[in-house]
Amino acid sequence: MVIVMGPEATQGDVDAVVQIVGTAGGEAFVSRGISRTIIGLVGDIERFGTLNLRGMSGVADVIKVSTAHKLVSRDNHPERSTVRVGGVPIGPDTVTLIAGPCAVETPQQTLEAAQMAKSAGASLLRGGAYKPRTSPYAFQGLGEAGLRILADVRTETGLPIVTEVVDAHDVELVASYADMLQIGTRNAQNFALLQAVGSIGKPVMLKRGMNATIEEWLMAAEYIAQRGNLDIVLCERGIRTFETATRNTLDISAVPVAQRLSHLPVIVDPSHSGGRRDLVLPLTRAAVAIGADGVIIDVHPHPEQALCDGPQALVDGDLRELARVMRQLSPLLGRTLVGDALATA
Amino acid sequence: MVIVMGPEATQGDVDAVVQIVGTAGGEAFVSRGISRTIIGLVGDIERFGTLNLRGMSGVADVIKVSTAHKLVSRDNHPERSTVRVGGVPIGPDTVTLIAGPCAVETPQQTLEAAQMAKSAGASLLRGGAYKPRTSPYAFQGLGEAGLRILADVRTETGLPIVTEVVDAHDVELVASYADMLQIGTRNAQNFALLQAVGSIGKPVMLKRGMNATIEEWLMAAEYIAQRGNLDIVLCERGIRTFETATRNTLDISAVPVAQRLSHLPVIVDPSHSGGRRDLVLPLTRAAVAIGADGVIIDVHPHPEQALCDGPQALVDGDLRELARVMRQLSPLLGRTLVGDALATA
Amino acid sequence: MVIVMGPEATQGDVDAVVQIVGTAGGEAFVSRGISRTIIGLVGDIERFGTLNLRGMSGVADVIKVSTAHKLVSRDNHPERSTVRVGGVPIGPDTVTLIAGPCAVETPQQTLEAAQMAKSAGASLLRGGAYKPRTSPYAFQGLGEAGLRILADVRTETGLPIVTEVVDAHDVELVASYADMLQIGTRNAQNFALLQAVGSIGKPVMLKRGMNATIEEWLMAAEYIAQRGNLDIVLCERGIRTFETATRNTLDISAVPVAQRLSHLPVIVDPSHSGGRRDLVLPLTRAAVAIGADGVIIDVHPHPEQALCDGPQALVDGDLRELARVMRQLSPLLGRTLVGDALATA
Amino acid sequence: MVIVMGPEATQGDVDAVVQIVGTAGGEAFVSRGISRTIIGLVGDIERFGTLNLRGMSGVADVIKVSTAHKLVSRDNHPERSTVRVGGVPIGPDTVTLIAGPCAVETPQQTLEAAQMAKSAGASLLRGGAYKPRTSPYAFQGLGEAGLRILADVRTETGLPIVTEVVDAHDVELVASYADMLQIGTRNAQNFALLQAVGSIGKPVMLKRGMNATIEEWLMAAEYIAQRGNLDIVLCERGIRTFETATRNTLDISAVPVAQRLSHLPVIVDPSHSGGRRDLVLPLTRAAVAIGADGVIIDVHPHPEQALCDGPQALVDGDLRELARVMRQLSPLLGRTLVGDALATA
Repeated sequence: MVIVMGPEATQGDVDAVVQIVGTAGGEAFVSRGISRTIIGLVGDIERFGTLNLRGMSGVADVIKVSTAHKLVSRDNHPERSTVRVGGVPIGPDTVTLIAGPCAVETPQQTLEAAQMAKSAGASLLRGGAYKPRTSPYAFQGLGEAGLRILADVRTETGLPIVTEVVDAHDVELVASYADMLQIGTRNAQNFALLQAVGSIGKPVMLKRGMNATIEEWLMAAEYIAQRGNLDIVLCERGIRTFETATRNTLDISAVPVAQRLSHLPVIVDPSHSGGRRDLVLPLTRAAVAIGADGVIIDVHPHPEQALCDGPQALVDGDLRELARVMRQLSPLLGRTLVGDALATA
Repeated sequence: MVIVMGPEATQGDVDAVVQIVGTAGGEAFVSRGISRTIIGLVGDIERFGTLNLRGMSGVADVIKVSTAHKLVSRDNHPERSTVRVGGVPIGPDTVTLIAGPCAVETPQQTLEAAQMAKSAGASLLRGGAYKPRTSPYAFQGLGEAGLRILADVRTETGLPIVTEVVDAHDVELVASYADMLQIGTRNAQNFALLQAVGSIGKPVMLKRGMNATIEEWLMAAEYIAQRGNLDIVLCERGIRTFETATRNTLDISAVPVAQRLSHLPVIVDPSHSGGRRDLVLPLTRAAVAIGADGVIIDVHPHPEQALCDGPQALVDGDLRELARVMRQLSPLLGRTLVGDALATA
Repeated sequence: MVIVMGPEATQGDVDAVVQIVGTAGGEAFVSRGISRTIIGLVGDIERFGTLNLRGMSGVADVIKVSTAHKLVSRDNHPERSTVRVGGVPIGPDTVTLIAGPCAVETPQQTLEAAQMAKSAGASLLRGGAYKPRTSPYAFQGLGEAGLRILADVRTETGLPIVTEVVDAHDVELVASYADMLQIGTRNAQNFALLQAVGSIGKPVMLKRGMNATIEEWLMAAEYIAQRGNLDIVLCERGIRTFETATRNTLDISAVPVAQRLSHLPVIVDPSHSGGRRDLVLPLTRAAVAIGADGVIIDVHPHPEQALCDGPQALVDGDLRELARVMRQLSPLLGRTLVGDALATA
Repeated sequence: MVIVMGPEATQGDVDAVVQIVGTAGGEAFVSRGISRTIIGLVGDIERFGTLNLRGMSGVADVIKVSTAHKLVSRDNHPERSTVRVGGVPIGPDTVTLIAGPCAVETPQQTLEAAQMAKSAGASLLRGGAYKPRTSPYAFQGLGEAGLRILADVRTETGLPIVTEVVDAHDVELVASYADMLQIGTRNAQNFALLQAVGSIGKPVMLKRGMNATIEEWLMAAEYIAQRGNLDIVLCERGIRTFETATRNTLDISAVPVAQRLSHLPVIVDPSHSGGRRDLVLPLTRAAVAIGADGVIIDVHPHPEQALCDGPQALVDGDLRELARVMRQLSPLLGRTLVGDALATA
């Protein structure tokens, strides 16, 4: 059961709900999201039903969770949602370009990549400080030092930051620097981590597990939502199949299928799904044309020196061309590229 | 080893090549394709190398097959090919809309579907007279009676016919009615059938096996090409994965990958890959945007009565909308929808 | 609908059934299998229901096909079947060892391999004269010359022959030499070929398609059975998955699952599923222990010279060890290795 | 780089190594495993090479990690390892039966299940107190209360406990109760969790990720080993494929493949791979016959009331039969069922 508080709700209203739930033997997880405060209840639903929660001060809605993924489902929320990241929208009216280096390596490399991203037309900066790697002997990221670099580059460029968190333990730390937390494909069923990001008031980008069905992906989102955080963006990044010509197989159909089942925004990662630079532009065209709400792109000022995933990173000219094509295609879908929307407004 | 004859080559030139190859202990498969005559040689390549075939009258080129799929490979043929089906092009400058009923059921149903297809903007009519079905108790198609219906509808509407052949035995019969022969996903490694359609002078649409790698798909095309028929169109129709939300998983990346490896045109089947009517339009947008050379679409005047694959068939209004979207998108790729190209010309 | 004739049925009885079905507008496929004659009816089942076929002379049973795979299903045939190949049983009381070269190359290589097989304890000789190969440039087998070699080696060794047929056209020819026809994984949904082997009076080994569900595999068997041939042995040979350490992934669970759904014998191909010599023995142990009715093994007197699949072929000592292990394990399952059963009897 | 300390090494020896590594700008992870103390070094390998670590007091070996999975690889450790859990061996000379309820529900259900397990011949008790579930609304386990129940049942029955940990945060707590920590399939690339169990002195059972290649599985084990814990048992539990007749596809070939690549013991989970009670016994036969070092089995006194995975749990008689079959098969592989080995000794 989930309680949605209205915009006028006070801290006292929230406390009152928490208290009454505790008295009834339940547990309440409060989260002040960017756009709403939500209280997730765990315990005896029958008992909660007797509490007249809907009548309490500040309570806007009480949602009984009867279907498997009630909170992220479109059944109870027919309008598609827009999630705002440092003021930048990801949602049904726009197409958002997120770009940046796969891994933060040095201040200069990160700044150069961010400047490339911004001047091409990107609205958000991606960059990894914590890198989950198959081998324990591979470069695992700079950790907090990387987060500090990202924060400095944000100050310099004005681009809000999207960065991955790989350990429930680090969620607070990462959230203190980042504008959006990314959950990677290998953590798509790391439920402790999902719950941790569900309890923090920052938007989350949830990558699809490379072996997750669409149903399981939405369930993972439900884990986040259940702790009160509905500012979730789903990201399709390819699934594992028998085909080896591409790193993973981009499941382009998952975009309309997930948008039909869930009200959450859905974006596409053309860089990691293909794993090949020459596929990034064509896959981006497909993503925008099918109706994705954005794309997230690896860029690197010097891909040949990249510590991670260099072969798929775009260079400056490629990214400008990609943004140009996004600008051309978006209007056919009744959308605008986000930076342009802001520029025009 | 393959000998490509020049346009000026006479029957005598061809006979001379066949004879000399036979004398050298080899076997020669002659095929007069629509655009060129080709002679595929099987036997001792070393021996053939001593024959000075390149110097013979009418011989334009001798290709030694050293890589795995030499004839369909782009390595030796950097320009992308255009295949013409009853005068209708499928190739790099255009986008071709093929539409029609999954199965030919009655003259009236086929004619209505063809009229829907034509008035929406389709240039080729698809329709199955021989239906490979998982169960032996399912409707298997009308056979030759279905082919006759298709031929009548072609006369009525002017649309050239694409139809499936499932048995090497039937290739001549089907080719006597059809403008293009279709090889279905279940026959993607039915080598006897591939060789049979390779020996007949009609264009072939080769669907990707639902478990075939892109490499195996091109090898299957090579089986056809080796018998002298290079008028082959590749069709991506989804691969088998763990995801069950869609019938198969459309491997949209396969379009640019196959176009980079092979000079053959590549089209997409959004109807069979998704298996859901609501996905046909979005998948078509993705296909055109990524650079597919055409799409093939199931339509039915009355999908609820269809004997085969009704749930994915488009009705009249849907198909018009789909063609409208294709018209909008094509120019962004520097292409024209085929019917419009002809209309304008 | 399928009519099973009794052992006493005369040719006249069969003709009478065919005639009455034809009069009712139906088509009858007669097949004298090794153990029974069956007439498959295609047409209007309602109409056939009015014919009192069950009362006709020589008719033992009339089976209405209402479920998807009625004829091979265990629902209507609870006892598991034994199929006999040149007198050698494959069924629930025994374990049958089939061995031989992947491809027939020369008389000497085939004879040596057969002698290895026989002296180790194999009861049936496998060997390919027609080889379906992914590449058109790979060795495709000796064709009829290979069949003649196999027949000579049968005369020499007394081992009945199992060999693959890849083209419906060749079924009669191959059946004139072979004791058992093999349908390979790439032809698992080549329905014309399945129907052709269903119409010939020889046992069939049906390999599972590398992308076929167990349900689809049984449906393919039903295509054969529907034409009157119930002497079918199913062969699990690995499915295609993301794992690349083995050529395919042996789906060992498919053995008990298929045996529960169907009365047909189920054997395992450890050579092709793993594609590695070192896995043949362990996979054979697993196959016998789980209850497979036999195994089919690649052997070659000189694997390093093999034209096809050398890396997985066993040599002499390996095969003896494999047979020894099969002898040890079989009694724990209440079975005997076939050769020993015959020797003891 | 990893330093293996000899059995005679003192705390002072260990401290000295840690200090010198720190002085050289590196980081040292010390871990006192059950059978050896290991110090994993992270930092500049070149620099470490100058330190003459091999000459220091108490140091038995210095392993340079040059291949991808050096520590778990059989290259440097040709003899297969035995891991001891509360005195119970899992290794190449024995077959170990681990049984117990999927989830700990009540003291009585857990005790009954443990008594079933013990009297049948199991040597270790499995039971989940923390359950990772696809849906946030499914039963997630009793948490620490469940651990206390397990500890009580251990006291009662003498069976050491294997139980899952799902959060790096909980590793110390779970390790304070458990004899062996289990990492589940969904956490197979949860690197923070792998590192956490690598730093604690308890044996670990590492389930294969349902989408992990064998290579990735060994890499996950390397993450644990790198922190100094080499008491790792690999558990094959089925991979995700297109087949839906079983919950997952047991990759039986993975057992010999992993045993060839790694010196770690490899066991099989027949309950979760098949997801069907009728497959548990046949899959166990296959597992023992192929050479698995043990099996882990779901049992439940009253499966129809189970809160989790009831359909696959064995009841009392089934488990006795399973142990009987394991006793019969083990000697053929030169092994003994563990309980019997102890009983005989």
